[in-house]
Amino acid sequence: MTDTTVAPHAAYDPARFQPVTWIEHAEALRSGADTPSTYLERCLAVIDAREPVVKAWVTLNVAGARAQAEAADKRWKAGAPLSPIDGMPIGIKDLYMTKDMPTQMGSPLYAGRTTGEDSACVQALRRAGAVILGKTVTTELGFSHPGPTTNPFDPERTPGGSSSGSAAAVGAAMVPAALGSQVVGSIIRPAGFCANTAIKPTLGALHRGERQGLSHSHLGVHAGSVADLWAVSHAIAKHAGGDPGHPGLYGPEVAPSAERPRRLIVIESEGWDKTDGTTRAAFQQLINALASGGVEIVGRVDHNDIDAFENAIDGSLLLCRDICGWELRWTLRNLAEKDITQLSPSMRTRLELAEAMAVDDYRAALSTREAMRTRFRALAATADAMISLSSAGPAPRMADTANTQGEPGVAHATGLPAYNAWTSAVGCPAVTVPMLSVGGMPVGIQIIGRHDNDWRAAGIARWLVEQIDPVTV
Amino acid sequence: MTDTTVAPHAAYDPARFQPVTWIEHAEALRSGADTPSTYLERCLAVIDAREPVVKAWVTLNVAGARAQAEAADKRWKAGAPLSPIDGMPIGIKDLYMTKDMPTQMGSPLYAGRTTGEDSACVQALRRAGAVILGKTVTTELGFSHPGPTTNPFDPERTPGGSSSGSAAAVGAAMVPAALGSQVVGSIIRPAGFCANTAIKPTLGALHRGERQGLSHSHLGVHAGSVADLWAVSHAIAKHAGGDPGHPGLYGPEVAPSAERPRRLIVIESEGWDKTDGTTRAAFQQLINALASGGVEIVGRVDHNDIDAFENAIDGSLLLCRDICGWELRWTLRNLAEKDITQLSPSMRTRLELAEAMAVDDYRAALSTREAMRTRFRALAATADAMISLSSAGPAPRMADTANTQGEPGVAHATGLPAYNAWTSAVGCPAVTVPMLSVGGMPVGIQIIGRHDNDWRAAGIARWLVEQIDPVTV
Repeated sequence: MTDTTVAPHAAYDPARFQPVTWIEHAEALRSGADTPSTYLERCLAVIDAREPVVKAWVTLNVAGARAQAEAADKRWKAGAPLSPIDGMPIGIKDLYMTKDMPTQMGSPLYAGRTTGEDSACVQALRRAGAVILGKTVTTELGFSHPGPTTNPFDPERTPGGSSSGSAAAVGAAMVPAALGSQVVGSIIRPAGFCANTAIKPTLGALHRGERQGLSHSHLGVHAGSVADLWAVSHAIAKHAGGDPGHPGLYGPEVAPSAERPRRLIVIESEGWDKTDGTTRAAFQQLINALASGGVEIVGRVDHNDIDAFENAIDGSLLLCRDICGWELRWTLRNLAEKDITQLSPSMRTRLELAEAMAVDDYRAALSTREAMRTRFRALAATADAMISLSSAGPAPRMADTANTQGEPGVAHATGLPAYNAWTSAVGCPAVTVPMLSVGGMPVGIQIIGRHDNDWRAAGIARWLVEQIDPVTV
Repeated sequence: MTDTTVAPHAAYDPARFQPVTWIEHAEALRSGADTPSTYLERCLAVIDAREPVVKAWVTLNVAGARAQAEAADKRWKAGAPLSPIDGMPIGIKDLYMTKDMPTQMGSPLYAGRTTGEDSACVQALRRAGAVILGKTVTTELGFSHPGPTTNPFDPERTPGGSSSGSAAAVGAAMVPAALGSQVVGSIIRPAGFCANTAIKPTLGALHRGERQGLSHSHLGVHAGSVADLWAVSHAIAKHAGGDPGHPGLYGPEVAPSAERPRRLIVIESEGWDKTDGTTRAAFQQLINALASGGVEIVGRVDHNDIDAFENAIDGSLLLCRDICGWELRWTLRNLAEKDITQLSPSMRTRLELAEAMAVDDYRAALSTREAMRTRFRALAATADAMISLSSAGPAPRMADTANTQGEPGVAHATGLPAYNAWTSAVGCPAVTVPMLSVGGMPVGIQIIGRHDNDWRAAGIARWLVEQIDPVTV
C-alpha cells in the first residue's frame, strides 16, 4: 500500500485518487517488507482521520482485528499464508452475521442484536485468513432508508445505498475491500458514487448465508482493484460456494488479466432518460474513445434485437419493487407487529404496496423476469459484454434527495438505482470501474457479462480501467 | 368429526382406523351443529388421553388456541369464515417460527428460543383462520437424532422422522393436520408409519420461510384426508406463496376429486432391496389389484427408459447426504463452535463428512441431481403418475434401530428414507395414503406426480384410498 495522497473530502480527481489495495502488495508481504499488522495499522490511521465525517462503520473490532493480523503475520513469515488474502482487512456489510460483532441491519428493531454466528461468507473469509475488521453501515434492511454515512468525496452527498458503508470505506481508502449486497442497485450504484471497483456477481455465485429470502439478491465485493475484488470473491466461493443449489462463482484463483473487447453493446435502460446532460456527455465521450480505439459499439438504434431488449427491461424498477415487496411481506409484517413505528416511512410504504399484492401478481412478476432473462441470454451471446453507466449521474446531494423516487412510489434518499434494477432481476454479472469524473465526483461504468462469465466480465473491466483514459467533465 | 374408535395404541386396522378430519365436517360448521371451539375441545381430549405415551408435542398453546377457536366460532356464526380451514386446529413442526411459542428445532442449542415472529407458512395459516395449537416434535434440526415421540400404533416403534410429532399427532387423531418438512424422507416416511395422508409438494411450492438453507427442502402437510391436506396447502400458497422465486402451489381452492389413473409406473428405487418380504408381498398384492382393475402397470422390467431412470436415482441417499452436508456445513460449524457436545453423534458425523467436501464435490452432486431431474421429466410424461412404497416396511422397533443406516455412513434411528430421497432430490410432488397393514402396523403408498402437478397427484391418491381396498398381511 502506498500512502494515500487523497486529502479528506477532496473532490474526485482520477489522476490523483489512489485506493488502498492488497494483491498488488503481495510481494512486500512475501518478502517481509510489510506485514498484515503494519498494513492494518495504516488502515486504522485512515479510519481515525476520516471516520468522524464519513461514518462508514457501525462497529469496529480493532482488538480482534489486531489479533487476527498478528496470526497472519506469523503465517506469512513462515511462508505459509492460508490464501492470497491472508491478513487482508475487510469490512462486512451489517446485514451479514459476525460471531464477534452485533448484526444490526440498519434498523432499530435489530439494535444490539448479537447472534454469536458467522454468515457463510464471513466464515469463508476467516478460513482464507482475512481480517474481519468491522461492520459497515447499511440502509434499513438493505433498502431505502439511509444511515449516517457520507460520500468520501463530498460529505454533503450520499454514498449511495444500500451498501453505503462498504462503498464509502473503500472510497475513503480505509480498507482494501468490503462486502456488499444488491437486490435493486445496492452494490454497483454506491460503488460508482464512491470510485470503487466492485462486482455484483452472477445470481447465486457467492453464498448469501441465511439471507435467502429475496430471490434475486446478490452478495458482492467492493474493492480498490479488479485483482482484489477477484481474490475476495474467489475465497468466498472456495470455502462457502454459492447459494444453496447453485454451483458457485466460476473462475480460477488468479484474477483475470485485462481483456480487450471486440464488441460492446451499450445499454440505456431506464437510467438514460433520468441522467443529467453532463454525465451523458461524459459517457458518450468514453464510448467515442472506445470506438476510436477499434471496439465495435452497438446500441438500440443499430439493431432491432437490442431495441427489443431495452423495451423488455423497461419497467425493471417496478418489477423489483413488486418482487421484493412480496418476498419481504411476511418479514415486514412480523416487524410491524413488533413495533411499526420503528420502520421508516419508505419501508412502511413498501409494506403497504406489498399488502395490495396477491400471489398471482407475484407469479406474473416472476414470468416477466424470466422473459427478461431469456432475452438477455440471447442478446448477450452476440457481444463480448454490455456497457452502461453505473448510476444516473454523480451522487446526489443529500439535501436534494428528499423527493427523489426510486422504484415507483418509493422514496429513495440514496440515489436512483435505474441502471441497476435490470441487472439484478436478470442475475447477470456486473463489474463497475471508476471511469468518469463529473463536477469533481466519481461516476462508474459497468461492464455486464453473461451468466457465470464473471471472470471474463472482470477482465474486460480491468482492460477498461487500465487501458482507457478516464473522462473528466 | 366422529369420535375416534381407535383405542390408544391399538394395532393398525384399516377397517377401524378413523383419522380426525375437517373439510368433511364443513356442513356441521356451516349449520351451527358444531363449532371450532367444540371441535378443538375434542382434539384436546384426545391429546390429554394419548400424549403421555405418544409425546407428539413440544409446546401446546391451549389458551391461545381456545381464543383463536372462539374468534372462528363468531366468523362461522356470522356466515363469514375466512377460508375453508377457519378454526381448524393445526400442529406446527418445531422447525418453523411461531410468535406465541418457542422454536426449538429439536436441539438443546435452541432450547427455550423465542423469536416473536411467525414463519411465512404460520402467518398464512393464521390469515386463513387456522388455530395454531402447538409445536410438534422434530428430530434434531430436522435430521436423524430422534425426539421422545412414539408411534401411535405401537409405542415401542418409531413414528419416523424428522416430522415425528406431526405424523404421530395426526396418526393419533389429535389434530386434523400438522405441518412437516422433507429434505430426504421426513414427511412421506413418518406419514406412512403413522397412517397419515400427506403431501410433499413440488419443490418450492409452499413457502419455507427463513429455512431456505437446504436447496431441496420442502414444506408439506400431514392430514387425515386428501381434502384436508389440500385445503391446508392451498391456504399457505394463497397467503404466502411458494419459496422466493417460485410461483407457488398450483391448483384451485377445491380439493381434487378422485381420478382413476390409466397408467402407473412402479418405481423400486433404493428401497426395494431393503424391504422385508411381507411388505413386498403386500405391495405386490396391491399392484395386482390395480392391474386386475384395468390400470396399466409398468416397471423397470418392461421398459428400458424406466430401468435407466432406476439406475439414475440409485445413489440418491448418498447424493442427499452430500448436498445437505455441504449446505449445512457453515451452520453446523457455528453450532459446533458454540458447544459441540450439544450436537448428537449423528450430526457430528454429518459435519465430519461435510468437512471432507470441496466446492467441486458439491458442484458434481448438483450436476447429478440435475441429470436425475431431466430423466424424471422425460419419464414422468409417459404415465399418469409413479407409484411406490412410502417406506421399506412398517415403522421399526426403536430397540432395533441403533444400527440402522440412513444415508451412507449416517446412523438413522427413525427408519430408512430409501424410498424418499430420490423424490426429494428430484423435487416432484409425492402424496402418501395408508393402503397397507403389515403385522398390525400401517405402511403407506406414494403417488408421485410431475412437477407442479400436485393437484393431479393428490386426485390419483384420493382415487386409490377411496376406490381400492387396503391390503392386510
